[in-house]
Amino acid sequence: MNSSPDAAADLAIVNCTALVGTSSGRAQFAPGATLLVEGGVITELDANPSGSPHAREVIDAQGMVAMPGLINTHTHAAMTFLRGAAEDVTVSSWFNDYIWPMEVNVGERDVYLGTLVAAAEMIECGVTTFADHYFHMHQAAQAVADSGLRANLGSAFFSSQGDEGLHQSVAFAERWNGAANGRITTCIAPHAPYTVTDEHLAAAADAARRLGLKVHLHAAEEIGQTRSSVASRGATPIEVLELTGVLDAGAIIAHGNGILPDDVAILARYRDRVGVTHGPKGYLKFAFGPLTPIAALRAAGVPVGYCTDGAASNNTLDILETMRIAAITQKQIADDATYFTSGMALQLAGPDSAAVLGMRGQIGELRVGARADVILIDTSGFHCQPLHDLAGAIVYSVQPSDVRTTIVDGKVLMRDRQLLTIDRAALLAEFRLRAREITDRTHGRTIQDYAP
Amino acid sequence: MNSSPDAAADLAIVNCTALVGTSSGRAQFAPGATLLVEGGVITELDANPSGSPHAREVIDAQGMVAMPGLINTHTHAAMTFLRGAAEDVTVSSWFNDYIWPMEVNVGERDVYLGTLVAAAEMIECGVTTFADHYFHMHQAAQAVADSGLRANLGSAFFSSQGDEGLHQSVAFAERWNGAANGRITTCIAPHAPYTVTDEHLAAAADAARRLGLKVHLHAAEEIGQTRSSVASRGATPIEVLELTGVLDAGAIIAHGNGILPDDVAILARYRDRVGVTHGPKGYLKFAFGPLTPIAALRAAGVPVGYCTDGAASNNTLDILETMRIAAITQKQIADDATYFTSGMALQLAGPDSAAVLGMRGQIGELRVGARADVILIDTSGFHCQPLHDLAGAIVYSVQPSDVRTTIVDGKVLMRDRQLLTIDRAALLAEFRLRAREITDRTHGRTIQDYAP
Repeated sequence: MNSSPDAAADLAIVNCTALVGTSSGRAQFAPGATLLVEGGVITELDANPSGSPHAREVIDAQGMVAMPGLINTHTHAAMTFLRGAAEDVTVSSWFNDYIWPMEVNVGERDVYLGTLVAAAEMIECGVTTFADHYFHMHQAAQAVADSGLRANLGSAFFSSQGDEGLHQSVAFAERWNGAANGRITTCIAPHAPYTVTDEHLAAAADAARRLGLKVHLHAAEEIGQTRSSVASRGATPIEVLELTGVLDAGAIIAHGNGILPDDVAILARYRDRVGVTHGPKGYLKFAFGPLTPIAALRAAGVPVGYCTDGAASNNTLDILETMRIAAITQKQIADDATYFTSGMALQLAGPDSAAVLGMRGQIGELRVGARADVILIDTSGFHCQPLHDLAGAIVYSVQPSDVRTTIVDGKVLMRDRQLLTIDRAALLAEFRLRAREITDRTHGRTIQDYAP
Repeated sequence: MNSSPDAAADLAIVNCTALVGTSSGRAQFAPGATLLVEGGVITELDANPSGSPHAREVIDAQGMVAMPGLINTHTHAAMTFLRGAAEDVTVSSWFNDYIWPMEVNVGERDVYLGTLVAAAEMIECGVTTFADHYFHMHQAAQAVADSGLRANLGSAFFSSQGDEGLHQSVAFAERWNGAANGRITTCIAPHAPYTVTDEHLAAAADAARRLGLKVHLHAAEEIGQTRSSVASRGATPIEVLELTGVLDAGAIIAHGNGILPDDVAILARYRDRVGVTHGPKGYLKFAFGPLTPIAALRAAGVPVGYCTDGAASNNTLDILETMRIAAITQKQIADDATYFTSGMALQLAGPDSAAVLGMRGQIGELRVGARADVILIDTSGFHCQPLHDLAGAIVYSVQPSDVRTTIVDGKVLMRDRQLLTIDRAALLAEFRLRAREITDRTHGRTIQDYAP
């Protein structure tokens, strides 16, 4: 607490309507609130401020909602390069005919550029933390450091790479955990149970336990993968994760559309360290049948967070969009319009997405002691008015461009729609030039086969 | 054609990438195109322009996509007043506990204000034509005239109003058809088969035939209504519309989620004059089970268009959002990721939505002879880049704020995000003040009971 009148905070946000809670599916807002930040942490959150705050930088957020920065619990950031490169195709064609052959072309500089474009897009739509699962991750880490965002990074590997894939994933995790003043955390990142052997999964789990990190991987992405796993080896992907110790180590599981009722019971045993990421836009686009069983997972205490997956499948990295589509689809699946209230939708966006990354209490909430990851949303547009229901406006009306200001660790990354850490013109110029070459498939090679 | 070198066009749009066709599910774009407008009509569309056009106003659309203005085939525009007033409730509670009691408070001035707010929101997200179904419609018509938008307007009635409801609906349609230089067209607007008697439906159909107008109404909105109709009177809502002559007169049917396979066969007989409107965001929010059977309707030649319904259920009036959610949900329903391509999604937005309103060839396409209803979309944002697939970018990436310019009948209504026909501050000030009173339910009255 900044109680001495002489001590100046680093940043004060005044006159905002602050989202201060989402418990029991109800969003609580504090109008006219003041938020103080010092050393990257929220040091004061005052719903009834008296007098002007003493701070080196003051943002007047009159007419704005202050809420915790959004969290993208699973993406492949550098895949912005492949946005729109494989539209209207089946998931197997998407992998085998387009994306994996194209990724042969993706070099280190591309990962830096693609990740920085993703960072710019996420800053612009209010995402302050993302979990990234890709390759050439030293370059991705550099882009995170340069952009000012927070990220949990994992260097992906297939067993087709031999032991080397696993080793570099572990080495990356050791090297970068805690970097960028703690904004970067890491994980061990096997691709999936259908591309990584049980031995490598077990070794990944061991490394994760040793380093105190999670395993981030794809599993039970859609029901066909689950059926295929049961047919070929007599175990669901979730059962494989338990057998190999991945669940025991702690895991971020993308995407779980193929999680069966018996799998939920397994996951419940590891609910303090395992979470599931959900990004329905891409799932529906791929015509996946059942969606992630969110109601069952939540009933079992397993946290579910929002994600976008990569831009090559989801087109956007917009968690507001994920939240909106999740809310309406979950209502329909539950056959209950009163389910998945706006408050609950915001709870998944905040503390629950944080929990998936093992960061509950640090991000996803505006509270004293949490990291100062804050976004300011302008709700004065015609499309939000009148404000009969503020939570409803955020879930169902707000547009990405209504996010005016994005702050991470108390540092302003976007002020009134102006990016402060990224040179838009220079980045886009280099990115566009390189994008022309990156979809070339004349080399006839691929990085992997999709045959789950 | 403006072929004389001395004749100046009213407006020229130069250097745009024009969406010039969507046949067979493929979007065709003409880069570097020039579009000339005279007398509110597109007089030239040149994919290979030579020299500078001769026009009184020239818009340089370098880096922009020019596409036909979007069409909202069913809304209740003035319900912007009730945006967020009834969230997370069942459809029967939405009507009986919230909306219909609140609508007791909605007066003539409210309908003017609410419709103008809706018009502003639609101009801002690229909607140039909307079909409106509400009451105090003289005021809605005035808002359309003032805003510069194009609209098809129907004055809603219930049989609980006696014959007077029907009579005023017909009188409104006669009075306003062709007003605002032809931008306003009209229809006869019974509320629904479950609130209007067969006699009144038949009389509405007769009036529509006499005046050369359509009947615009709710029918088979969700499967429960269909079941209830079959149980209580032995006919589906679509069968009732055939028996009463509504289909023969020509109809705009909202929302058709409860259309059965046998109903599709009936509708097919009237496909030259009957269309169905589709707005999945609100349907999912209400947890409606099956969605509008778009594939079956299209296979039968019945046009399906996009709508938002009112802001009280859908929160937004954003047809880009409707299109996106329609595309992903239709892929999943069809269990086929290759179905509902981006080109097809754009075809529904353009010529098919126009056909639902009986305006095919006049709006929804950029072609010589069509009305000059054009929007310019900036695709340079990070969230759209790179442009490997332009149609995919429009369907899956573009944000409402990317619509920079909105033009109706060759008149610019929004230029580079600045509204030119609506005074934002004055309108919002009056609207917000009135919105505080409009949700009052202490009077204990309602305009109608929902018991389909």
